[in-house]
Amino acid sequence: MTHINPYAMGLDKNAANFVALSPLSFVERSANVYPDRIAVVYGDERRTWAETYIRCRRLASALAARGIGPGDTVAVMLPNTPAMFEAHFGVPMSGAVLNTLNTRLDAPAIAFMLQHGEAKVLLTDREFSGVVAQALSTLGTHRPLVIEVEDEAAPAGQRLGEISYEDFLAGGDPDFAWQLPADEWDAIALNYTSGTTGNPKGVVTHHRGAYLNSASNALAWNMPDQSVYLWTLPMFHCNGWCFPWVLGLVAGTAVCLRRVDPALIYPLIREHRVTHMCGAPIVYSMMISAPAELRAGIGHTVQGLVAGAAPPAAVIEGCESAGIEITHVYGLTEVYGPSAICARQESWKGLPVEERARLNGRQGVPYPLQQAVTVLDPATMTQVPADGETIGEIFFRGNAVMKGYLKNPGATEEAFAGGWFHTGDLGVRHPDGYVKIKDRSKDVIISGGENISSIEVEDALHHHPAVLSAAVVAEPDRKWGEVPCAFVELKPGNDTVTQDELLAFCRPLLARFKVPKRIVFGELPKTSTGKIQKFLLRDRVQSASAIE
Amino acid sequence: MTHINPYAMGLDKNAANFVALSPLSFVERSANVYPDRIAVVYGDERRTWAETYIRCRRLASALAARGIGPGDTVAVMLPNTPAMFEAHFGVPMSGAVLNTLNTRLDAPAIAFMLQHGEAKVLLTDREFSGVVAQALSTLGTHRPLVIEVEDEAAPAGQRLGEISYEDFLAGGDPDFAWQLPADEWDAIALNYTSGTTGNPKGVVTHHRGAYLNSASNALAWNMPDQSVYLWTLPMFHCNGWCFPWVLGLVAGTAVCLRRVDPALIYPLIREHRVTHMCGAPIVYSMMISAPAELRAGIGHTVQGLVAGAAPPAAVIEGCESAGIEITHVYGLTEVYGPSAICARQESWKGLPVEERARLNGRQGVPYPLQQAVTVLDPATMTQVPADGETIGEIFFRGNAVMKGYLKNPGATEEAFAGGWFHTGDLGVRHPDGYVKIKDRSKDVIISGGENISSIEVEDALHHHPAVLSAAVVAEPDRKWGEVPCAFVELKPGNDTVTQDELLAFCRPLLARFKVPKRIVFGELPKTSTGKIQKFLLRDRVQSASAIE
Repeated sequence: MTHINPYAMGLDKNAANFVALSPLSFVERSANVYPDRIAVVYGDERRTWAETYIRCRRLASALAARGIGPGDTVAVMLPNTPAMFEAHFGVPMSGAVLNTLNTRLDAPAIAFMLQHGEAKVLLTDREFSGVVAQALSTLGTHRPLVIEVEDEAAPAGQRLGEISYEDFLAGGDPDFAWQLPADEWDAIALNYTSGTTGNPKGVVTHHRGAYLNSASNALAWNMPDQSVYLWTLPMFHCNGWCFPWVLGLVAGTAVCLRRVDPALIYPLIREHRVTHMCGAPIVYSMMISAPAELRAGIGHTVQGLVAGAAPPAAVIEGCESAGIEITHVYGLTEVYGPSAICARQESWKGLPVEERARLNGRQGVPYPLQQAVTVLDPATMTQVPADGETIGEIFFRGNAVMKGYLKNPGATEEAFAGGWFHTGDLGVRHPDGYVKIKDRSKDVIISGGENISSIEVEDALHHHPAVLSAAVVAEPDRKWGEVPCAFVELKPGNDTVTQDELLAFCRPLLARFKVPKRIVFGELPKTSTGKIQKFLLRDRVQSASAIE
Repeated sequence: MTHINPYAMGLDKNAANFVALSPLSFVERSANVYPDRIAVVYGDERRTWAETYIRCRRLASALAARGIGPGDTVAVMLPNTPAMFEAHFGVPMSGAVLNTLNTRLDAPAIAFMLQHGEAKVLLTDREFSGVVAQALSTLGTHRPLVIEVEDEAAPAGQRLGEISYEDFLAGGDPDFAWQLPADEWDAIALNYTSGTTGNPKGVVTHHRGAYLNSASNALAWNMPDQSVYLWTLPMFHCNGWCFPWVLGLVAGTAVCLRRVDPALIYPLIREHRVTHMCGAPIVYSMMISAPAELRAGIGHTVQGLVAGAAPPAAVIEGCESAGIEITHVYGLTEVYGPSAICARQESWKGLPVEERARLNGRQGVPYPLQQAVTVLDPATMTQVPADGETIGEIFFRGNAVMKGYLKNPGATEEAFAGGWFHTGDLGVRHPDGYVKIKDRSKDVIISGGENISSIEVEDALHHHPAVLSAAVVAEPDRKWGEVPCAFVELKPGNDTVTQDELLAFCRPLLARFKVPKRIVFGELPKTSTGKIQKFLLRDRVQSASAIE
């Protein structure tokens, strides 16, 4: 008699026991359970979760009425305003995919993204009208519907939209019967990374991952119900590390602001009793170096996630005395923002601050709901020994890993080769299992939380007729974390070219933050096969600088 | 030109970005990240997460070596000991399904479950050897492998196992390469409910739901990392409401104990700084009526989940002064234990205790990761108005809803008719959307947190030759919450039969807690078609009693 598995019969999925995982469920629950709780604070504006949910339904309805639905892209070029927050729910509620554009990019990059992502709609803010107008002008007949998000607080600029955001919402149905995605694997967002080559790659994430990484953020951070979250992290960075959705989950309050400035941040923390915030180390550096009078009168502890670079001892120490408790996380756009955490151990308490900075400076362990982060030998795909010395590549695996790169099967296949997501970061495993980055195989420079592809900067320099060879590496910088430093070898007979001349040449070609801060002239060190030995250049800038 | 959806191409699932959701991942993470943190406390025993994980792997390996795997059932008849905790990880790690047996049941019920569930292995504790031996004797050649969990603290009893649990583990591989389930929809546990008809129904739950409801428990309760959890709730009740897995998720500490007794509970709370516990109202009643000296020296607040019945005002008030903060949750075995929560609103603070008891006494709103709980008109399956008066049936929908009933397609279909899980509980929706139970359509009596099927008790009474008709309803009871009260109509000419005689007749047929506390003789009220009007009987016992 063959064994019949009794569990394999008549126990199938149905509408009662299987629902697509989607963070859109969170906003509905918060609106139902805590309708009167404040969801959004911005200047003098206050909106409850019930009001916010209605606006999101209006947005979804108005988009649907324009024929926008599954498979369509809605791009946004917005600062951290309420419209940006609402877009994270309203756009996917229509079935469309949200593409948040990095507002610091230049017109060619924005044009590329609008074109490659096939955006049907663009929500834009006056502050970026110069870049956006230029980008739109190159799109020809593929110009999306442009919706103007009007904000009195925006600096002067041109109005580009055919309709205002408020008028667009007014045309939507507040009771719109939006649908969860047909499949939790459906795309929810598109985020372009600076990548390492000329054109950015479009990271496609899904509802399942956004749902799980939202819960994972709340769990990793012990983030309670009713948290008050300050938007110091741009929402265009991998959907604000999923935090618009996390706030839906914990029925928290989103305190919005256009600009990261301690003169704005401290009064908001004081007034709204902000409990949580995120940012690159530079955000915290700015906060702790702010005048003492700005910081006065704040008696509670603020929890701060930090990523983009390890927090230096000075930042950890400064935050401690400023009442900010720092938690170091690590991730990439491809893993929905933070997906690893330098989980604090009880035994670290009471250690000297330098020692704690060393321990907290590691990239750590997987997030609670992420499956794995580890260091593998990329040749054999086996784990390197936990000796703190053997360098391999850092890999992720789990449900908070992107679907892949949009219209880029080659890059997708490469990213997932061997059944792991390749971060491109090189690292080691410490004896306690914590992962630590040692180098970036992709040569990305992280400046003020923004990724700069060294190759893109090198390309710009290479366009100058006098440049023979250029190599750009990260130089430690007290303010920005890292800045690009260029090493340039001039063609013979061009010795009179100056740093100022080359920088002036680069400015029209690069976003401002990508322009090198310093150019060093001279012969570049090369291997016997002619490959530039960047590690030697990195050593030179490292030994010439000191962060602390 | 037809529109091509760019998101529908080349963005498929693979080993890097899709992993089956399973709570088994939690124990691995805790063992890796917090290897030295205490996972289990029991008497003088202390085991870290690393040690616990090794024991779970040994258990899985030893089971696999006996040919146990996917589709097989491993039953356990255990109190809240470390072995019971380990079984929640070790059994499903082998691929098998964990069937925790209610240790308060009698031999025929246990025999039915072992037979119906097709248990291949049974882990048992000496305390229950009488019932288990009797149950095993009826199984004939289908007797499972019996493993004896030896515990010095167990009362005297017969040894039934062919091998001791420790010897069984010793034969297992501490590095066993267990696998996640092939599909997150695979069964993880089998739990029998008392149901409403003679034979219990086997609720089959899956890895996906166990994973999500574990996270949901931690989120609903703001349960932080490192929580210390006291096992006052039997783990045989829907897998301890998923809390063995929750403790894996938050790397918490499980403080085990065999018996719910304030004389044991308070010293454990004090010694281990217990932060969280669960139980029926009776657990908290016992605690607050314990002598003051037992409660002395506990300075911290203990969070307590309460379910099974709404906490009365006296319990809420008593807990407040005893330093226990009560949260009322609601659920059933079919929804993985608690799946609705009476979420506290800020506006309730400062209300008089009776008013807070009324508000907290409601079944509430969906858990953070449960999709919906609501009241529908079962005829139309539309939501009843939120008027606090219109009675309908309470329904759940979401990912924390069972796969169905084992080998019972009829009951499964009925439970899921209309795309919602039918709780069988009748209730209303209050104006704030909170669900409130008004009656139990299934006539289940909840006594000390245990479900008693009134029909089972009636069946026992009906076996007595003098009984014409019997109806059993819940009678409010200060200690147990509810107790069974029987109304019996005797056959003509049998007027001399006494209560004592009938109770003595029932005792060998029923578990002790199911034997009626009181028998009322007389003609039963019936409808014109002969159906007993239980609601009239219920009114009689309600008006004759008063809980508070």
